Amino acid sequence: MTSPPARIGAPIEEIDTPALVVDLDAFEHNLRKLSDFARKAGVRLRPHAKTHKCPAIALRQIALGAVGQCCQKVGEAEVLVRSGIKDVLVSNEIVGLNKLRRLAALAKDATVALCFDAAEQVDETGAVARDFGVELGALVEVDVGAQRCGVLPGEPALALAQRIASTPGLKFRGLQAYHGAAQHLPSIAEREKAIAGAAAAVRQTVDLLKRNAIACELVTGAGTGTYQFEAASGLWNELQAGSYAFMDTDYARIGGRDSNRFADFEHSLFVLTTVMSVPAADRAIVDGGLKAYSAEKGPPWVHGLADVEAVGVSDEHGKLKLGPNARPLRRGDKVMLIPGHCDPTINLHDWYVGIRNGRVEALWPISARGAVT
Amino acid sequence: MTSPPARIGAPIEEIDTPALVVDLDAFEHNLRKLSDFARKAGVRLRPHAKTHKCPAIALRQIALGAVGQCCQKVGEAEVLVRSGIKDVLVSNEIVGLNKLRRLAALAKDATVALCFDAAEQVDETGAVARDFGVELGALVEVDVGAQRCGVLPGEPALALAQRIASTPGLKFRGLQAYHGAAQHLPSIAEREKAIAGAAAAVRQTVDLLKRNAIACELVTGAGTGTYQFEAASGLWNELQAGSYAFMDTDYARIGGRDSNRFADFEHSLFVLTTVMSVPAADRAIVDGGLKAYSAEKGPPWVHGLADVEAVGVSDEHGKLKLGPNARPLRRGDKVMLIPGHCDPTINLHDWYVGIRNGRVEALWPISARGAVT
Repeated sequence: MTSPPARIGAPIEEIDTPALVVDLDAFEHNLRKLSDFARKAGVRLRPHAKTHKCPAIALRQIALGAVGQCCQKVGEAEVLVRSGIKDVLVSNEIVGLNKLRRLAALAKDATVALCFDAAEQVDETGAVARDFGVELGALVEVDVGAQRCGVLPGEPALALAQRIASTPGLKFRGLQAYHGAAQHLPSIAEREKAIAGAAAAVRQTVDLLKRNAIACELVTGAGTGTYQFEAASGLWNELQAGSYAFMDTDYARIGGRDSNRFADFEHSLFVLTTVMSVPAADRAIVDGGLKAYSAEKGPPWVHGLADVEAVGVSDEHGKLKLGPNARPLRRGDKVMLIPGHCDPTINLHDWYVGIRNGRVEALWPISARGAVT
Repeated sequence: MTSPPARIGAPIEEIDTPALVVDLDAFEHNLRKLSDFARKAGVRLRPHAKTHKCPAIALRQIALGAVGQCCQKVGEAEVLVRSGIKDVLVSNEIVGLNKLRRLAALAKDATVALCFDAAEQVDETGAVARDFGVELGALVEVDVGAQRCGVLPGEPALALAQRIASTPGLKFRGLQAYHGAAQHLPSIAEREKAIAGAAAAVRQTVDLLKRNAIACELVTGAGTGTYQFEAASGLWNELQAGSYAFMDTDYARIGGRDSNRFADFEHSLFVLTTVMSVPAADRAIVDGGLKAYSAEKGPPWVHGLADVEAVGVSDEHGKLKLGPNARPLRRGDKVMLIPGHCDPTINLHDWYVGIRNGRVEALWPISARGAVT
């Protein structure tokens, strides 16, 4: 783990760059906004730690009413439980004895659940839970349209739920129903339609479970792009959004209710860079590239500088093009970039530098960075 | 830093996934091949540590004849010098008192050089070197076609070299002349032409320095895609390739001398994944996505499995499509992926798992992972 790139109390200009910066006012606004939304909608909020990878943030979300955290990896669950988080759902299938044992060990200290989409995975996990003398929560992942993991809705989901219900060491908790592919559909109408399709699949499955006397306590899923539709469906009772805390250009690009810009949440996440070279009047090079932000969604956006655009990204450099109306940039100037995709960007850094009123107010370790197993 | 994903001596099947795996035979072949090439061509080899970020690899390259290492960041230079590397070139401009002081401190233990493309940067760096009582090597970065950093060839380069030569604390070493944009041009003819253009710019500058009685000890640059042209030019006397140790799909795609595939070096770098779900006969999901390999160059290639293709990448998942001639995949099967871009992929991991003859032979910490400042 690298050293923190700033000291508490320092002005922004003294932050060593590139650095991952969080505008704390915007960040807290985002946390409150989704927390208030969930409370009013009468659904539980279980924010996704795969995005933030940081217990300091998990604890803030829980203090605002979240029921716990979800995550994708056993290594993330380990970081969360060691930090005192008492309710963790691994919203993913877990394969292999080693990983299952690590997860079972965590169930000694916290309520732990995971997802299933194969019968043999149920049998293996039940055996490990019994071996460790713990009970693991078990959700059936239903493919509600993303065509990634998950069983098909209806009979296949019922069969797996029945197998879980009859497996000592496992407790059937409900359905994992996340439509990942719907999150970034370009218009609100397309996202609404996709979740309507997912809802039909969920309804069919919940009804079938009910007819077969299997209690379905949880239907959990949803993301930053669609949470309002799952909440309004009357089916989902738990939301798993993660990016809402930060936003990114990939979310900002999708259309909102009243505009072409998705503005449910504010941009709170930035990569702070420094201009390291100004080789021409219309070109400035900043000291952050692919190792400071992910770019599979394209170059980052330049924040707060008129007529300046990021036009090229290499491993350690960002190339800015200054248009005719741009204020000249000089060596040493700071430039805030909005990353294309928050999750993999955060996973590049060891520290969040929280800023407010022009100075560093918080340094939060990204303790689950690199926790890929 | 996460724990190593394997134990020395374990079979490949026991490596916790996703993991960054190095085929040691292929890796050693690549190191020897470029080392032998440089020796025969009569040029120095200074491999780029921005790619590998690992002192264990740097020491192997030096044992095979490399004169030292180059890197892009002060943080990388710190890791190298602390591990005993005695000659480090930061092939990049460094801005800011804090970073310059860190670099000057390293010059107490090693020969350290950096690049310049602005007069005020020369003045600032000279002052820091004198303050620390050290001498820093100084290269003028010339823009030879990449249009990123660097001064223009000819008079601007001469003026900066003269300023360096008259600045106590700095020692003018020569020219940094790297054509990054040429590395991935799709045909060998285009790459040859680009380096011919770069060579004209270098020649003009070297001649001008000579006429002004400024000794130009080094002309350094080149990468995995073009090294043969710089070596043959009679101008460059030092090569800075990095990716050659590993390769990736982005390099493999460019045309070679006798084929459409660039095959100067073998693929030695893989992300080992496990099949975590097989939801349909033509679809398998592996447990590695954007946090295990970078995908700004597209999805990874599937290694060694006929008619299986990676068609989707999300944060923690890779989606494989099995064609009609594919052998069925089962939960728990291991799949080796060839990353699109080696540098940012390596920067996601804490460990190289070196394999040979089917088992784990080496665990090398990626000590400069995340060293972005």
